[in-house]
Amino acid sequence: MTYDSDNIFAKILRDEIPSTRVYEDADTIAFMDIMPRSDGHVLVVPKTPCRNMLDATAEQMAAVMKTVQLMSRALMVAFEADGITLQQFNETAGGQEVFHLHFHVLARHEGDRLGAPGKMGDQVVISQNADKIRASILDL
Amino acid sequence: MTYDSDNIFAKILRDEIPSTRVYEDADTIAFMDIMPRSDGHVLVVPKTPCRNMLDATAEQMAAVMKTVQLMSRALMVAFEADGITLQQFNETAGGQEVFHLHFHVLARHEGDRLGAPGKMGDQVVISQNADKIRASILDL
Repeated sequence: MTYDSDNIFAKILRDEIPSTRVYEDADTIAFMDIMPRSDGHVLVVPKTPCRNMLDATAEQMAAVMKTVQLMSRALMVAFEADGITLQQFNETAGGQEVFHLHFHVLARHEGDRLGAPGKMGDQVVISQNADKIRASILDL
Repeated sequence: MTYDSDNIFAKILRDEIPSTRVYEDADTIAFMDIMPRSDGHVLVVPKTPCRNMLDATAEQMAAVMKTVQLMSRALMVAFEADGITLQQFNETAGGQEVFHLHFHVLARHEGDRLGAPGKMGDQVVISQNADKIRASILDL
């Protein structure tokens, strides 16, 4: 399996297509999923290329997990969440659709259910949720 | 939220209750889920206490992810898998049932579906699958 630099997250990293970013550091970015399964549905990706967890370096993983943890804590505050669900998919059989390593970080509330996958969200709502997350990161 | 050292994974770490371990290093262990949702369903936990990703240190996360990657690669070989699904749950609302940080690493095949959660597996089959995983780790 190889890395295809035309994948959608590579294009987002190169700013060739828009995204709603909530966080960036030297090694990673975090942005809103455009098909959110909960109000706070953030994707975390490394800036450097790797297909998924199977070819990622330990350094890429450590950098990504640091941002995953930060996003998890921010989502708990931003949405007064009761929990966080983390998902990460490798290859098509594993659930992967975009072949650049990414983690799904999802804010959860008691008794909720995740929304159906593959349904486009309302961009106004997504932008408002992104504002809440950015504000929460500053407060951590 | 605090850490309760009577949780079932803490007891497994102390060898107070049995588990089918497939891997151990200085900082982590990996063992078979007794309610497997696929043939290769492994749990990875840190040896040191933390409730979940929300209170884990960056060091605990890095150690766990190193083992998660190793297990993912071993499962791909052991079960001739087509992909890996990774899940991690934080707090009850996030899907967590045992309050010691753990990652679910699941071997997947094209067109399969994960088994229902909460169903006890056949211990003979689990032991055979563990043997396959241990052998694959040695071959990596």
